[in-house]
Amino acid sequence: MRPARTFASDNNAGAHPAVLRAVERANRGHVVGYGDDPYTERAKRTFRKHFGDAEVFFVFNGTAANCLGLQALTQPHHAVLCSDAAHIYTDECGAPERFLGCKLIPVPNDAGKLTVDAVARRVRGLGDQHHVQPKVLSITQSTEMGTVYTPEEVRALARFAHSKGMKLHMDGARIANAASRLGLTLRQATRDLGVDVLSFGGTKNGLLGGEAVVFFDRAAARDFKFLRKQGMQLASKMRFVAAQLDALLSGGLWKRNAAHANRMAKLLEREATAAGVEIVYPVQANGVFARVPKRLIPKLQARSFFYVWDEDAGIVRWMCSFDTTPSDIRRFVARLK
Amino acid sequence: MRPARTFASDNNAGAHPAVLRAVERANRGHVVGYGDDPYTERAKRTFRKHFGDAEVFFVFNGTAANCLGLQALTQPHHAVLCSDAAHIYTDECGAPERFLGCKLIPVPNDAGKLTVDAVARRVRGLGDQHHVQPKVLSITQSTEMGTVYTPEEVRALARFAHSKGMKLHMDGARIANAASRLGLTLRQATRDLGVDVLSFGGTKNGLLGGEAVVFFDRAAARDFKFLRKQGMQLASKMRFVAAQLDALLSGGLWKRNAAHANRMAKLLEREATAAGVEIVYPVQANGVFARVPKRLIPKLQARSFFYVWDEDAGIVRWMCSFDTTPSDIRRFVARLK
Amino acid sequence: MRPARTFASDNNAGAHPAVLRAVERANRGHVVGYGDDPYTERAKRTFRKHFGDAEVFFVFNGTAANCLGLQALTQPHHAVLCSDAAHIYTDECGAPERFLGCKLIPVPNDAGKLTVDAVARRVRGLGDQHHVQPKVLSITQSTEMGTVYTPEEVRALARFAHSKGMKLHMDGARIANAASRLGLTLRQATRDLGVDVLSFGGTKNGLLGGEAVVFFDRAAARDFKFLRKQGMQLASKMRFVAAQLDALLSGGLWKRNAAHANRMAKLLEREATAAGVEIVYPVQANGVFARVPKRLIPKLQARSFFYVWDEDAGIVRWMCSFDTTPSDIRRFVARLK
Amino acid sequence: MRPARTFASDNNAGAHPAVLRAVERANRGHVVGYGDDPYTERAKRTFRKHFGDAEVFFVFNGTAANCLGLQALTQPHHAVLCSDAAHIYTDECGAPERFLGCKLIPVPNDAGKLTVDAVARRVRGLGDQHHVQPKVLSITQSTEMGTVYTPEEVRALARFAHSKGMKLHMDGARIANAASRLGLTLRQATRDLGVDVLSFGGTKNGLLGGEAVVFFDRAAARDFKFLRKQGMQLASKMRFVAAQLDALLSGGLWKRNAAHANRMAKLLEREATAAGVEIVYPVQANGVFARVPKRLIPKLQARSFFYVWDEDAGIVRWMCSFDTTPSDIRRFVARLK
Repeated sequence: MRPARTFASDNNAGAHPAVLRAVERANRGHVVGYGDDPYTERAKRTFRKHFGDAEVFFVFNGTAANCLGLQALTQPHHAVLCSDAAHIYTDECGAPERFLGCKLIPVPNDAGKLTVDAVARRVRGLGDQHHVQPKVLSITQSTEMGTVYTPEEVRALARFAHSKGMKLHMDGARIANAASRLGLTLRQATRDLGVDVLSFGGTKNGLLGGEAVVFFDRAAARDFKFLRKQGMQLASKMRFVAAQLDALLSGGLWKRNAAHANRMAKLLEREATAAGVEIVYPVQANGVFARVPKRLIPKLQARSFFYVWDEDAGIVRWMCSFDTTPSDIRRFVARLK
Repeated sequence: MRPARTFASDNNAGAHPAVLRAVERANRGHVVGYGDDPYTERAKRTFRKHFGDAEVFFVFNGTAANCLGLQALTQPHHAVLCSDAAHIYTDECGAPERFLGCKLIPVPNDAGKLTVDAVARRVRGLGDQHHVQPKVLSITQSTEMGTVYTPEEVRALARFAHSKGMKLHMDGARIANAASRLGLTLRQATRDLGVDVLSFGGTKNGLLGGEAVVFFDRAAARDFKFLRKQGMQLASKMRFVAAQLDALLSGGLWKRNAAHANRMAKLLEREATAAGVEIVYPVQANGVFARVPKRLIPKLQARSFFYVWDEDAGIVRWMCSFDTTPSDIRRFVARLK
Repeated sequence: MRPARTFASDNNAGAHPAVLRAVERANRGHVVGYGDDPYTERAKRTFRKHFGDAEVFFVFNGTAANCLGLQALTQPHHAVLCSDAAHIYTDECGAPERFLGCKLIPVPNDAGKLTVDAVARRVRGLGDQHHVQPKVLSITQSTEMGTVYTPEEVRALARFAHSKGMKLHMDGARIANAASRLGLTLRQATRDLGVDVLSFGGTKNGLLGGEAVVFFDRAAARDFKFLRKQGMQLASKMRFVAAQLDALLSGGLWKRNAAHANRMAKLLEREATAAGVEIVYPVQANGVFARVPKRLIPKLQARSFFYVWDEDAGIVRWMCSFDTTPSDIRRFVARLK
Repeated sequence: MRPARTFASDNNAGAHPAVLRAVERANRGHVVGYGDDPYTERAKRTFRKHFGDAEVFFVFNGTAANCLGLQALTQPHHAVLCSDAAHIYTDECGAPERFLGCKLIPVPNDAGKLTVDAVARRVRGLGDQHHVQPKVLSITQSTEMGTVYTPEEVRALARFAHSKGMKLHMDGARIANAASRLGLTLRQATRDLGVDVLSFGGTKNGLLGGEAVVFFDRAAARDFKFLRKQGMQLASKMRFVAAQLDALLSGGLWKRNAAHANRMAKLLEREATAAGVEIVYPVQANGVFARVPKRLIPKLQARSFFYVWDEDAGIVRWMCSFDTTPSDIRRFVARLK
């Protein structure tokens, strides 16, 4: 098996060597299970260095981070407002509805982003027993279309949500890419903008697998340990999840990985544009969305697999990873031509 | 951090070095996510070598393996019958009820085991709309008390379940220990005895983390990929879970690890008995349950942590792992004296 | 208390005298509870006279008829496609999501109706584990906007649904109004057009309260008695629900009530139009939707309450009932002027 | 159809004539739906006269009153402790587990009653993430075995529950029978003893159908209107449910009906005892439990149907109703002989 690097997804990459080394280092002797171990404690401290005084919980994957974080904020008669292209709305096989019991209300997006105006039009029926009650606004940063909300945009959405008694949830599967793009610390890119609960993504940024739910609204975390266990997301050998996330947040690995992936996306944008390919969304993180003649798509996929984003419009998605190289890009674009 | 080995739980051990090496070997280049990769394919083939033609799905942990496997067999108006000491009944924070929507009907156990008679008394109200309908019998092998069902016992329970239109689910978090004890292959210890769906445990037998749901009743697996995704248990970098399970089942590692842990438990039983400690359940797998004067428990725990199994009765649980050594045992028993 | 008749809703009307008499007649001696009584048996026979050989279950209200009927057709990883103005989508406080665990996928409507084209665009991701699987198409007849699907339209939607392995559910809270409008029997208006499961509405057509779930797809009804009980919708004194529905379907009461309400709506349309009011949807059943200057709405509501349908557009809804009189309408329109 | 009166269940009786008259009186003109009507307002005031300042909600049946009341007190990781013979545990087809997502923990009962000791043994694992967290103690008054908790017993259970941070829920499907037996007002029999939420039964005491959820813990009622709607229990023509409950609580009908049924049960006990039948539980409300030679049961049932309570022990249940007559009893006992 000698698979090459593709542009299919940042989760098609493997793990960064430093992450593997951290797992090996954690593999010594016995420690208590389920998170009462020194590795998990250290990883939580590392998170607090970055995010300030927050409650931090580790889970296996992004769907769980989103669903459990949202569950902590909702009752079944509530509603979660999100982009109609949000991962939670389109790509989690209904896990949020199933697990929260809530309705997700889709809000039209603009290149992946929501605006206060678009959200406000969906906040309806407050206090009316026939209607689900809007309780959480969930945004994705960076977005599913590879764009990045500005700090002002996030702050405005947070302000709006809070003014309606709602909480702001951020699906940060790629928050590292966004923070890097914005030149902000992780705290500045989340908590300081008004985010209440963050799904912090690790898997797409170089881990074997592991995500964190970070509660800036600490009251919402009160029963979360039960929600996680009942939600089938409590690792018995927690140290191996924690050690990965600790490695990512220690020594700036999160930022180097994300910045590199972002740079590669800009390079891919430039090269593809030069090759005559139309790029359809601003390239602000590690994803590049391009319009490609439909008949060519299968041929290109056969050589180096990637996903079609919008079949009707002939838009495809190319993702860059921490391990994408300039020569990967040049080879890929050469085929495009 | 230099934690020693304890007898608290087989999940307090780390990962076997061969498992870590398998993860490293899988960390090459890009592969498609979510299980469409060669590592996952190979791991499935390895499972089929052991179990015959079965449907195999990998998940993160044992609670998920149990809940999702049971979900594939039930509708919310069904009931799952299980031991009143079953992990699914007592230690999963209500995840089965929450996730299946089903009632779990507790059946009194005998040293962890169920009998046909005890189960039969709980099969009631068939066809009556006021009553949940018994649909699954779930047994744990080896049991929560460290005992092992004989093949005849499992076969009798399977026969009874099937005669009532029920399925037999096996929580095999420690099936390797049971098969090793019984001198059976994994297939002989499960499928050949009438098991319909198996939670195959890896984490407690030397993995970083990873379990499998194995469907001998293939019809029940039809929609399982959706159940797993919606159940928040689909790993994007599936190869790293698959590679671990593949390593466990290749070259007999599963058996060596389990047999060693079982041998250590017998040694611990002998040494503890010799030291005057009463052992309360037959030691047939890797767990030893002992009666200890209550006032001594905290002192012993302070030196080498373990769990109290029954506070009122002063019964404690000691688990052996793949990496337990005879000198660990001697040191531990020396303190007991 | 001497409340007059309004145009707020057909459920603001009371019960038809014949229905009350039927309840009184059923109030004799003791009968077995939960539906094993002669009144319920007779009511089921009456349903079968109208609908042919179908499985019939009585429940308390329309939300339950919809949710339980849909539950009988779905698993939690499925999706229900429906109009974005469907009662199940907008007015049941998320009961379908909560109870089915499913996602409801909103389809843009045309004056309350769905088209095959609009539905087809939402049938996506078949077989893809990341996506909920479309399993039911739910339409409302007559629609929430007072329009009525033609037989051809329903048949085309049924054909499309079945061609995709989906079932056709009809929310028939006002199916009597639709059948009356179309000049069809109840069977011709439902089963013969390809409907698989029908929520048959009684409450809005002159009952104290009571609806039926009618399964033309009898296989889907197999476990429904358990779903109904677990769904908290099994009446112990079932005879009193059954007797009402029996009265409605016996002697043509359903049709007289519905036809009268429809005629009153046409009269209201004519009178309002004559008074210069713009009617915004075709009046095909018992509802009239009108555009009214926004500043006048509160004044009109104060005299005779009704609901605003679309606040931004200034559209209001006026419903006619089995007991609406021409003089009610004239008085109401007089105020409009 | 001329069914006689039986002893099968108090819900096999019809409605009291005064209840029917109240429904007829409420059948005038149009009123706003869903509870914003004068009949519902009046019924709520009547409840407050009896119970003091409480939040009152009307629902269709007892299963719903129990499930929704319990839902208002719990999160899915909580547990409800109840008698292992409780209606919620054995006779609601798993509705509580399904609807709350919670585990119900069965507590052994003594003639239907729970004791503080028995409950205390089941309050375990507080704060432990692996265990569901006991949050509600639910008792049935009068019990499923026809016994009645003394005020002291209820008070002790309330005190215990509150001392553990738990709430006390009372399934009062037959609270009228208990209050009558105890010579207490409804308030004295519930709120004043420490009950937090009451399922107030109407159906078994002479209604067509209708129950109330009464919140003495008003904070718990905050979102209940949404829970009720989402729980498919919001009647559109609420006035007809409300008018029944109002009739029951006005003019002492609740007490006359209950006291009569209780008296009839005592008479049945005396007559049956005199006929040599063994009565197995104290007859304190309207139920009589008797041991009958198993071979005779089918013959007796054929003449006048009743339910077998415990098949193995040959125990049967006879319930008296508001309309049971002394001659019904004599005829029944004559056959026993």
